[in-house]
Amino acid sequence: MSIPSLKIVFHGQNAANFRHDFETLIDPAHQLLDLSDALDQAGEREHYESADVVIGIQLNDSMPRPLKARLFHAPAAGTDAVNIAFLPPACTLANCFGHENAIAEYVIAALLMRHVPLARADQDLREQRWTYWAGRPSALRTELGTQTLGLLGFGHIAQTLAQRAKAMGMQVLVANRSPISHPVVDRSWTLDALQDFMGSCDAVVVCLPLTDNTQGLVDAPAIAAMRPDAMLLNVGRGAVIDEKALYQALKNHQIGGAVIDTWYQYPTPTQPECAPSQFDFASLDNVLMTPHMSGWTTGTVRRRQETLADNIRRLSQGEALINVVRGPLT
Amino acid sequence: MSIPSLKIVFHGQNAANFRHDFETLIDPAHQLLDLSDALDQAGEREHYESADVVIGIQLNDSMPRPLKARLFHAPAAGTDAVNIAFLPPACTLANCFGHENAIAEYVIAALLMRHVPLARADQDLREQRWTYWAGRPSALRTELGTQTLGLLGFGHIAQTLAQRAKAMGMQVLVANRSPISHPVVDRSWTLDALQDFMGSCDAVVVCLPLTDNTQGLVDAPAIAAMRPDAMLLNVGRGAVIDEKALYQALKNHQIGGAVIDTWYQYPTPTQPECAPSQFDFASLDNVLMTPHMSGWTTGTVRRRQETLADNIRRLSQGEALINVVRGPLT
Repeated sequence: MSIPSLKIVFHGQNAANFRHDFETLIDPAHQLLDLSDALDQAGEREHYESADVVIGIQLNDSMPRPLKARLFHAPAAGTDAVNIAFLPPACTLANCFGHENAIAEYVIAALLMRHVPLARADQDLREQRWTYWAGRPSALRTELGTQTLGLLGFGHIAQTLAQRAKAMGMQVLVANRSPISHPVVDRSWTLDALQDFMGSCDAVVVCLPLTDNTQGLVDAPAIAAMRPDAMLLNVGRGAVIDEKALYQALKNHQIGGAVIDTWYQYPTPTQPECAPSQFDFASLDNVLMTPHMSGWTTGTVRRRQETLADNIRRLSQGEALINVVRGPLT
Repeated sequence: MSIPSLKIVFHGQNAANFRHDFETLIDPAHQLLDLSDALDQAGEREHYESADVVIGIQLNDSMPRPLKARLFHAPAAGTDAVNIAFLPPACTLANCFGHENAIAEYVIAALLMRHVPLARADQDLREQRWTYWAGRPSALRTELGTQTLGLLGFGHIAQTLAQRAKAMGMQVLVANRSPISHPVVDRSWTLDALQDFMGSCDAVVVCLPLTDNTQGLVDAPAIAAMRPDAMLLNVGRGAVIDEKALYQALKNHQIGGAVIDTWYQYPTPTQPECAPSQFDFASLDNVLMTPHMSGWTTGTVRRRQETLADNIRRLSQGEALINVVRGPLT
């Protein structure tokens, strides 16, 4: 059986990150096209409208419709910028994960920074000061492995993180919409007992997507329930933590600190530099601020390319697709 | 049966680190005494000579002999500063581990630093620069989990590290005096194939004690066999890596870099600040220099206290001791 040739378009700069060597992952019968974000170059609109497969992260009313698409594939987990009303009825919307290893490494690295003062030790020893030399009571540090990690949400990211944290010796607690039973989870709560969960952890990692139910879920009372030396981390979506409550808790030293990767304000094409919040987090010394970077690795790109290529193969061979966000309407 | 009262002396500042709350871990019948390093205070020499148990890290010819000791217990792994010729024949020499979790955290933290640029990302975002924002090709970082970790030696430290590295997704290779078969070890070599091992790793961690057989084991040819971007870490003993060969390899950028915790020169009571090598490592930017700190945590102290207390209980109850370095001469 010969493989049908599919027209596959990579739409915009985000999709372009997954284009490198992509032809080596799929059947050579397929046609690959790279389209600009604006779709304003000659022929781009027509290619978009006639594509069998669109790889992209947005579909909105300022854009043409992918009239022939049978697969709209986000090379990302979030598909909130894809308006499914604009997809043809027969089109499947799929997404990609593959970022969970990267995010787990980011979280473990950020947590370990609090326990192992490598940068300071290096700086001092270069000046012949043996500040953290073993045998001195003042040099004793704490261990991550003796602490309790709380995971708010238990999807791909949290499960990957749970397994690594457990291997580091940590206790692993979970709060989730539905009850959790998992070999590496020591105890779990449902969300109606959020404050009890928050007060049981040395570090809470927000791993939730943004939905109507999660927006502002970690509010002032939830943060107030945390241990005074506990850390709050966000690798899910900024607005799951109430912006003002987080800022106030850090400013007033109510908790031990925070590691925030997902934010409330993002740069735009016309404003490439901006503060990540309306509040002045940069004035605080008890927060590690990173620019929504936790999942962005060469490994993530490779794993997502493999998912994209796998679904293209499945589509061309009539097999069931994976990572389906919305299947064809029947 | 009543517990015999044992006279237990903590000798010197190092032992004093393990003294805190120690009475809560042992039978109240025992007598605990704190002695200075110099043993020059009134009665100290007599207490030392008459102690049933000595907790200390050194015994040399400038010191009195522990004439009555049945247990000489180092609160450390290394007993090279204890001259066993000065122990009474019936005395057992024991040591403590309990540092393996701490050292594993140090190594994972140091390895992750190379992959997750947290400090730089934080610095930039505080100035509204989103340098590592996901979606930009220039922001892509690498993953530790896709790399190969080589463990030179396979004692307590290496086994603990192997288990954590495997959980992070790494391949785990070992070079050891005797062949290794272990569930988390992907491949092992014996030391006669050291160069083949060194050339197969993205990071090599020296976990060996210093002996006649290990001194200078990692020599210029062994380092030359490493991959040009590989990291060399030392948490064993400094002199296992040839000092000059290491310095030259880093200065000439033959390897990707080094993380060195165990050194060639240490401070002395009369010289509390000193460089850690005769070579100017502080002039290099491809080495992370730390002051023999990797195992020094509150967890290590607690675990070693538990070992000390367990052996004191065993001694008083006539049970076999654990962590025996040299048993009684019969």
